[in-house]
Amino acid sequence: MATITAAREILRGLHDVMASKTPAQAKLNAVVGIVADALTSEVCSIYLLRDGALELYATKGLAQSAVHVTRLALGQGLVGTIAATREPLNLAEARAHPDFAYRPETGEEDYHSFAGVPIIRREGAIGVLGVQHADPREYAEVEIEALQTVAMVLSELLAGAGLVDDVAAAKARAQISGPVRLTGLKLVDGFGRGVATLHQPRVVIEHTVADDTEAERRRVYGAFEKMREQIDRMMGQAEFTGGGEHDEILETYKAFAYDEGWSRRINEAIDTGLTAEAAIERVQQRTRAKMRAIPDPYLRERLADLDDLSNRLIRIVAGQLGTAAQSGLRADIILLARNLGPAELLEYDRRFLKGVVLEEGSLTAHVTIVARAMGVPVLGRVRDFRTAINDGDELLLDVGSAALFVRPTTTMVKSFTAMSALRAKRQAGYAKLRDLPAETKDGKRIALLMNAGLQGDADALRLTNADGIGLFRTEFQFLVAATLPRRERQTALYKAVLDAAGDKPVIFRTVDIGGDKAVPYMREETGEEENPAMGWRALRLALDRDGLMKVQARALLDAGAGRTLNVMFPMISEPWEFDAAKALIEEQRAWLVKRGRPLPTVINYGAMLEVPALADALDVLLPKVDFLSIGTNDLTQFLFAADRANPRLADRYDWLSPSVLRFLRRIVRACEAEDVPVTICGEMGGRPLEALALLALGIERLSITPAAVLPIKAMVRSTTLEPLRAAMTGWLDAPGSDVRALLSAAADEAGVVLG
Amino acid sequence: MATITAAREILRGLHDVMASKTPAQAKLNAVVGIVADALTSEVCSIYLLRDGALELYATKGLAQSAVHVTRLALGQGLVGTIAATREPLNLAEARAHPDFAYRPETGEEDYHSFAGVPIIRREGAIGVLGVQHADPREYAEVEIEALQTVAMVLSELLAGAGLVDDVAAAKARAQISGPVRLTGLKLVDGFGRGVATLHQPRVVIEHTVADDTEAERRRVYGAFEKMREQIDRMMGQAEFTGGGEHDEILETYKAFAYDEGWSRRINEAIDTGLTAEAAIERVQQRTRAKMRAIPDPYLRERLADLDDLSNRLIRIVAGQLGTAAQSGLRADIILLARNLGPAELLEYDRRFLKGVVLEEGSLTAHVTIVARAMGVPVLGRVRDFRTAINDGDELLLDVGSAALFVRPTTTMVKSFTAMSALRAKRQAGYAKLRDLPAETKDGKRIALLMNAGLQGDADALRLTNADGIGLFRTEFQFLVAATLPRRERQTALYKAVLDAAGDKPVIFRTVDIGGDKAVPYMREETGEEENPAMGWRALRLALDRDGLMKVQARALLDAGAGRTLNVMFPMISEPWEFDAAKALIEEQRAWLVKRGRPLPTVINYGAMLEVPALADALDVLLPKVDFLSIGTNDLTQFLFAADRANPRLADRYDWLSPSVLRFLRRIVRACEAEDVPVTICGEMGGRPLEALALLALGIERLSITPAAVLPIKAMVRSTTLEPLRAAMTGWLDAPGSDVRALLSAAADEAGVVLG
Repeated sequence: MATITAAREILRGLHDVMASKTPAQAKLNAVVGIVADALTSEVCSIYLLRDGALELYATKGLAQSAVHVTRLALGQGLVGTIAATREPLNLAEARAHPDFAYRPETGEEDYHSFAGVPIIRREGAIGVLGVQHADPREYAEVEIEALQTVAMVLSELLAGAGLVDDVAAAKARAQISGPVRLTGLKLVDGFGRGVATLHQPRVVIEHTVADDTEAERRRVYGAFEKMREQIDRMMGQAEFTGGGEHDEILETYKAFAYDEGWSRRINEAIDTGLTAEAAIERVQQRTRAKMRAIPDPYLRERLADLDDLSNRLIRIVAGQLGTAAQSGLRADIILLARNLGPAELLEYDRRFLKGVVLEEGSLTAHVTIVARAMGVPVLGRVRDFRTAINDGDELLLDVGSAALFVRPTTTMVKSFTAMSALRAKRQAGYAKLRDLPAETKDGKRIALLMNAGLQGDADALRLTNADGIGLFRTEFQFLVAATLPRRERQTALYKAVLDAAGDKPVIFRTVDIGGDKAVPYMREETGEEENPAMGWRALRLALDRDGLMKVQARALLDAGAGRTLNVMFPMISEPWEFDAAKALIEEQRAWLVKRGRPLPTVINYGAMLEVPALADALDVLLPKVDFLSIGTNDLTQFLFAADRANPRLADRYDWLSPSVLRFLRRIVRACEAEDVPVTICGEMGGRPLEALALLALGIERLSITPAAVLPIKAMVRSTTLEPLRAAMTGWLDAPGSDVRALLSAAADEAGVVLG
Repeated sequence: MATITAAREILRGLHDVMASKTPAQAKLNAVVGIVADALTSEVCSIYLLRDGALELYATKGLAQSAVHVTRLALGQGLVGTIAATREPLNLAEARAHPDFAYRPETGEEDYHSFAGVPIIRREGAIGVLGVQHADPREYAEVEIEALQTVAMVLSELLAGAGLVDDVAAAKARAQISGPVRLTGLKLVDGFGRGVATLHQPRVVIEHTVADDTEAERRRVYGAFEKMREQIDRMMGQAEFTGGGEHDEILETYKAFAYDEGWSRRINEAIDTGLTAEAAIERVQQRTRAKMRAIPDPYLRERLADLDDLSNRLIRIVAGQLGTAAQSGLRADIILLARNLGPAELLEYDRRFLKGVVLEEGSLTAHVTIVARAMGVPVLGRVRDFRTAINDGDELLLDVGSAALFVRPTTTMVKSFTAMSALRAKRQAGYAKLRDLPAETKDGKRIALLMNAGLQGDADALRLTNADGIGLFRTEFQFLVAATLPRRERQTALYKAVLDAAGDKPVIFRTVDIGGDKAVPYMREETGEEENPAMGWRALRLALDRDGLMKVQARALLDAGAGRTLNVMFPMISEPWEFDAAKALIEEQRAWLVKRGRPLPTVINYGAMLEVPALADALDVLLPKVDFLSIGTNDLTQFLFAADRANPRLADRYDWLSPSVLRFLRRIVRACEAEDVPVTICGEMGGRPLEALALLALGIERLSITPAAVLPIKAMVRSTTLEPLRAAMTGWLDAPGSDVRALLSAAADEAGVVLG
């Protein structure tokens, strides 16, 4: 326990120094004396960052005439290296180090050994504390640790004495670190610029030396209890509270939260005289140092878990539990988080949230689905952002090129600004189309509907003047809630959407949950699936556990009272599933009729065609339905057996291949023969060339993302359809046509606006 | 450290007792004295299992006249309860316990408190050690632990003294435990009967008291080192060495292996005077007790990890590292393992291996794929078998009903035997068909080929007299190896298969790895996929990383030199993939031509149709191929977007639905028009009614599992095809036909043999 004794002795001295009413310089002079004595070192010096250089502020052992005279640039000499790397140095023979820079005015030629640690505040080095010794001697690990503890206390002392210029320190930090380009996984495409903002802000520790060690022990004990409770509770809920953590991470959290070693080390740090916050951070610093040094990715991940947990523990002990959303945004930000729940994302003010960067994240995570609906760009799987980005750094996010620029250069910012201006200009051009009809040059009116899922999406209906909502994804309300939404809340949402839509049609799709959209309150049931996209999801789950769907049916019928209700069922694979789903809603209707309750004037029932097998059962299905929607996202992934969320396959197969178009043509022909309206719902309809191909197949209704409505209208209004329909028939009947090239050339020749 | 001191004192005494040359009875008398003194208890008694009852063998404090007189049945009284449950009891007021049974001859009426622990050997209780005290007093946890340590030593002493009848103990164990029915997840269907055999046998500890504590410390230290090395190595390889552990488990292993708490507890147990093995087991007993008590499934899982690791550590320290396969099988067994690698499974002698029961396991695990090919039934996800089954118990495995019967009753065994006899009889009936042609009554010869993947499968070709191998799954060789098989080994396998097939055709399918068949040496590349079945696998991977496929091409060309080589590519989604794959092989052929090396006389190239989109590109594909195979397993899962490995969906959609049959009919018609032979490869073709439907669609070639060849031949030979073909056309042209019912009725009427 040598470390405890040494550190305790120093801290007791520092406690008195800090309590004394002497000026800051006197305090620093006292500190170097105490440290030199405790570590039996001939020299102890404090260098502080001032005007971009490290200035000798106090020393015992070096020439006093060098104080406020000796200055080292960041990265210069051993002291400058420590500040730049934020890593301690411990050298038996200082001169042998490549960064050694001799300063004759200090008289340090007598000293062989050197040990120094950074003084850190808000993750940046604001100074260096060093000791020197005449004989070549390597300081013991416990001595380095004692120095680090002193550096923590010094950080507080300096801040209290007004000797830290936070702005200058941030500038220096940026200067040291320079611009960095991090890469990740594209989750939601887009650009964004803003200030790096941690979803869970780090606590700045104001008091490091304890007045009452026993009280600090109790505080940390209480915080551990609270943290364990939180984690135990989270394990039951997963993904929704506290940052959307995965089960796996929660499991590691749990192991650490109950780890005796960790709490023991924190208690030992408290024993030296630190406050609870400082003790936790002291131990955390060691974790972070290890994290930087360890090459094993698995162990590094686990240390990141411990780092998260340390942050959580400090936040609990300091009573600072709010997220960045709760403190309110005042400027454009790029949000940084390990992971995020969809409900947490929705808490942020849309106006200032310019992007999200996640250390984890996946294409099918709920937060990704919701961010996509909100139009917020997201970059996931960004490694090492803990060490590369500081809270407050400027960030440029370019998901299209899978890149995050940290502290960008002026050139980068310029090119980003130019790009933004271009986009804005194009948007303004589209805006003029808002009130014009989506009609081809040869007079074919195309229905352009939009997809929605959040209540706020109703605004988009007004902005785009779309012909209605062709796909309202009711599962969003389920995904963003930690518990099953009650019927009243479902009714309220559906009613609000119908009200906002006015005379325009809204098509509600019953919940598509399960599979890759697992909800926490059903996780027990859905379990882990090997291939969730082909799993027990959507209507499959809803028919097997019909309680959920009955409630939704009631909510839809109540919301649609007195007007037309359009209901659509997802993932129909065989016609009997449509019958069963419709019967379920009719049963609820009958119940309401019996009680004389108000009802929709008309109910239209539709089926989603996204499972390939259904296309060969249309002779049975079509006579039953009022409308059909083709979900091209799911459909094409099953047709090609290629997960659209898999980056290795994302661009491998072409939606304009004859296989897909022939498949769709069969469906369109069957629908025409039965006079069933058919709509395309999916990204395919939102891309101009693909949408043009769909029109050429005979599709007259597209339901697409709001951002695509006006660009697609521009395409429609510049198209003469009949010649293209004929050409398409020819291309598809001939083997091996390159439809993309042929259509593209034809569109070009005819002057079709493709964005 | 009270526990160490108390236990150490007792053990020192026991060490002397065990070393002494006195008779066993005298030793037991000495033991009860030592224990009573150390725990300051008025009474200490030892009961041993003899002739099915627990007999008082030695006591200090109870009437000596009761020794060898007092007997308690298993489950009777406190002592009988301890033996039956194998759990300690610790009661301040013994009389208040519902199981208390008063024995007047012992004079125990004076004693209020009671504590007892089981004496365990080979997982069964062979006796009970108890202490009693006049005042109502609850024994401290450390005292119970000391008693358990003594019980371990007693177990050794009793075995050494010949006082344990292992057979009787096993019988008693079975009597206590009774028959149990465990359930699990069906992985490979079938029945099996045999003796429970742990893949990693538990070590029976022969020496519990250490002669030299320092030496034991070193032994355990060395074992820890070795274990950590093993785990670090396994983390790089996963799934192949040491039991097919998942990454996740390995991660927990790693955490435990480096856990200070665990090693400290073991060292403390060594300090009390135990040998390394005994100390590990002593700590493990505590883990197991916790495991039984903890309701939280996550923590229980983690304790199971620790239990595994304890076993591993004991095996290392005892130098007993072999698996059950390595000790050789002499009787029919049911193999028990947490998990198993495919290579480990192949080490077992097929003749005696009647089934596999896994605590984990999944339908797509390699071990499942290989076991299916070997015809060994596998039941997975069997919970709690650690506590319910003892090594050596009789087991009946019935995967069809997802059940494992432990220590079955005579009735169960009888019904099992009857069932086996019936199956054998039916098999004998089929055997008569071996040399008859697979020809329908109206003279249509059907090609019945078999699927294979292991070298041993060539035997099946001889046994079934199939028309050839319609699908040789070359990936099996890759799945069962820990490293990429070298070209020479690939060539040797292909050559052996061709030699065994003689004049019969063999169709080699190039490797289908990646996705759900990840191989460890490519894991880095394939990564975790959300939906591996629709992932970067098979030809997709092979075309992107063509080094692997080039090697395989060379191996196939070399093996086929001088004969016909049939090569088939899996997961073709668009025709260009076939071109690219064929070009890759032709390039290797050109290379061999240039060097004048021997070549196949003919190379036939074929495509697997298992991706739905390909069916709409047959006008481009068919002119290029020599043959087409329809992989119905994958195809139908994509058509229905329903993972066939997902138990919730397994029976949801019917292969005989018009959707599937119409889809297949389109392919058959296209092949007929282009004169391309088309084969069905997949389970569908191995089921008599489904196979009949395929014949009715015009399919004339089936490649099926060897076990199905003769039953399907029976079906073929009893069928008159023409009327069925006409009927099928009518059914499929009409909407909504229940083809299964119609075909079944027609087959019935026509007397088709459907097994």
